[in-house]
Amino acid sequence: MAGSAFTIAPELVERFHASRAAARALTTASSALRDRALEAIQESVSAHADQIITSNAQDLQRGAAEGMEESLQDRLRLTQERVQGLADSVGVIRSLPDPVGDVIREMTLQNGLHVTQVRVPFGVIGAIYEARPNVTVDVTALALKSGNAVVLRGGGAALESNKVLVSLMRDALTSVGLPADAVTTVDDWGREGAQALMKGRGFIDVLIPRGSASLIETVVTESSVPVIETGSGIVHIFVDATASAEQAVEIIHNAKVQRPSVCNSVETVLVHQDALGLVPAIAERLVASGVTLHADEAIRELVPTAVPATEDDWATEYLSLDLSLKAVATLDEALEHIRTYSTQHTESILTSDMANAERFLTEVDSAAVMVNASTRFTDGGEFGFGAEVGISTQKLHARGPMGLPELTSTKWIVRGQGQIRH
Amino acid sequence: MAGSAFTIAPELVERFHASRAAARALTTASSALRDRALEAIQESVSAHADQIITSNAQDLQRGAAEGMEESLQDRLRLTQERVQGLADSVGVIRSLPDPVGDVIREMTLQNGLHVTQVRVPFGVIGAIYEARPNVTVDVTALALKSGNAVVLRGGGAALESNKVLVSLMRDALTSVGLPADAVTTVDDWGREGAQALMKGRGFIDVLIPRGSASLIETVVTESSVPVIETGSGIVHIFVDATASAEQAVEIIHNAKVQRPSVCNSVETVLVHQDALGLVPAIAERLVASGVTLHADEAIRELVPTAVPATEDDWATEYLSLDLSLKAVATLDEALEHIRTYSTQHTESILTSDMANAERFLTEVDSAAVMVNASTRFTDGGEFGFGAEVGISTQKLHARGPMGLPELTSTKWIVRGQGQIRH
Repeated sequence: MAGSAFTIAPELVERFHASRAAARALTTASSALRDRALEAIQESVSAHADQIITSNAQDLQRGAAEGMEESLQDRLRLTQERVQGLADSVGVIRSLPDPVGDVIREMTLQNGLHVTQVRVPFGVIGAIYEARPNVTVDVTALALKSGNAVVLRGGGAALESNKVLVSLMRDALTSVGLPADAVTTVDDWGREGAQALMKGRGFIDVLIPRGSASLIETVVTESSVPVIETGSGIVHIFVDATASAEQAVEIIHNAKVQRPSVCNSVETVLVHQDALGLVPAIAERLVASGVTLHADEAIRELVPTAVPATEDDWATEYLSLDLSLKAVATLDEALEHIRTYSTQHTESILTSDMANAERFLTEVDSAAVMVNASTRFTDGGEFGFGAEVGISTQKLHARGPMGLPELTSTKWIVRGQGQIRH
Repeated sequence: MAGSAFTIAPELVERFHASRAAARALTTASSALRDRALEAIQESVSAHADQIITSNAQDLQRGAAEGMEESLQDRLRLTQERVQGLADSVGVIRSLPDPVGDVIREMTLQNGLHVTQVRVPFGVIGAIYEARPNVTVDVTALALKSGNAVVLRGGGAALESNKVLVSLMRDALTSVGLPADAVTTVDDWGREGAQALMKGRGFIDVLIPRGSASLIETVVTESSVPVIETGSGIVHIFVDATASAEQAVEIIHNAKVQRPSVCNSVETVLVHQDALGLVPAIAERLVASGVTLHADEAIRELVPTAVPATEDDWATEYLSLDLSLKAVATLDEALEHIRTYSTQHTESILTSDMANAERFLTEVDSAAVMVNASTRFTDGGEFGFGAEVGISTQKLHARGPMGLPELTSTKWIVRGQGQIRH
């Protein structure tokens, strides 16, 4: 731990050792046994809905007393329906194929050595997230399905909810003969628990932050444990000179309006100056769905009701029914704008010019780049991965929508008959 | 840069922007053009050997005056032969297949969207290493072959050597029409240059430390940029009760003696108590090659000339003609010892018992696990990867021997005909 002043408390070290031992048990546990654990978790969460909701009510009461924003209270709140949804999602994850043991590469060397690269669990996954108790169950199910133990650190505002959920899941593990310590929490250690996860090199194999951009930034910056960063999206659509009018109207509307609160929704539309004629129809369709337009001068001449856009608009992930629009003279100007403001999540070009499409696909450095499609398609479910592990905006290990295989590492297995190296 | 007190100097920010622009140029450059750049680098390094050696002599002179250890001087020293070797290795890297553009997954969704996951360069790779000027050329060639720009920070003791090498490589890039800034150094910024690389999130896409365990530990701990960790190896061989005597003698000798200074050489041999009869023959063969044995009491009864092993021996990566030996009662005790002391690089079991072999392969959590083979086979060259990118001991992104594909990221390309999400 050179260069780090933080020391992990002995009690937490002991807990991390227990997680490691549980991870070892998961490594030798069959896929069927891990599935039985998920089944037990699903049943237990479903059967204890009342108890979960009672604990959640304590969190909500404390939150309300402390002046928690209504939108945050809503994310924290568990209802009968939401608890059943939580249980159901465990069932969905259980039904996915187990990535552990998959052979990635296999070869026999000239000396007769047989070499295989297989998927293995990471071991212990750490998760740091905000006051959303559904993440407690979701991350645990994904971790167990991929053979990993998990150490959780949820937001303090969900303390009671998480306590009961973790307790139920630990009991479920025990009920099928797996160690309870496959699911651990450091919530009772508050800020120090989060620090221990971030500085727990050797204890925690990979850390997954889930939540606001500032939480993710803090984890990425402070962690000495490798992080899988699931990030924010300032997502662009470029309407090229040759874009189909009908497609432009429908794709932009879909990318903004279908679900504005998610990271793959569009935030900025760049319009080639020769396509400005499409702007009134695009704007009309958006405004009819309640979208507030923020536009530069060229666009506002066509849509006078649009709010004047400022520099801030280009750099904002609205996650709401707001959209910024800007006219550009060339594809190059669009590429330059995207380079400046994109968070490298998803960008789409609408065009009939295949040379421009290829340039866009090659030169835009984002996790997903598209031609004539809604940016909302950057999604593990749409890509057929089954589970919502998240969308990585980093370039290491995983980029774009992640499936269960992205929650595994690999191992080289070499089988010989006495070979030595010459 | 939340949570970080360090601010990157404007001059370095400007330099990083130039690297990013060069990386963009490499993204659109053909594979053939990048190969021409490598050819020009190979020729230039070869043609300017005298100039390189003269600069290197300045470094060596300063090092000697400052009392640099002879072994470090040797690693720093460039001779005619070593410079030609450097140039040759650029040629070898040039001849490897280009990973950029390789299709990893390809699918057509039910809605007609065509989705491909392709390999793309990371963008800008940072490298922090010690006073070995060969790394300057080697890392640059690997980066350019995989379509990446590189920012170098070599050890201060190789300042003059690196200056001339970087200058030659930049000129070579210009000579083929690629931007010189595809190779940049921050050596002139000393410690602050290294800090800027480690804190350069958004500028540096991935950071590769090369060198001592303490250098790597510092980079991993202090960096907020994702790191590919190439690590040290406290490598174990377990001689099971049913090991073949002849294979045990030859494999252990090979794993220790063939090249003791590298990370995949064995450091500790664990011997099942029922296989202790093999110890004299194993020891004799090792001692005849000049190996110093450090052993526990049970082994020393059979090999009285062995030095008594201490706790430190089990935790030491000798990288020399030293080997520690320990008797264990069971496979479980061997697994426990490996869990405690291994750096999770490579472990091998010598056995005729296939059930024990399978347990070892499953339960040992190392980048490479072997049965009846020398640990020296954990090597990119042996696995047929061609280039020596390094051996990753981390679990994220790459594990074990790395080839050129491990120096790339991926991108999802989605081609539609107006699809929107329902």
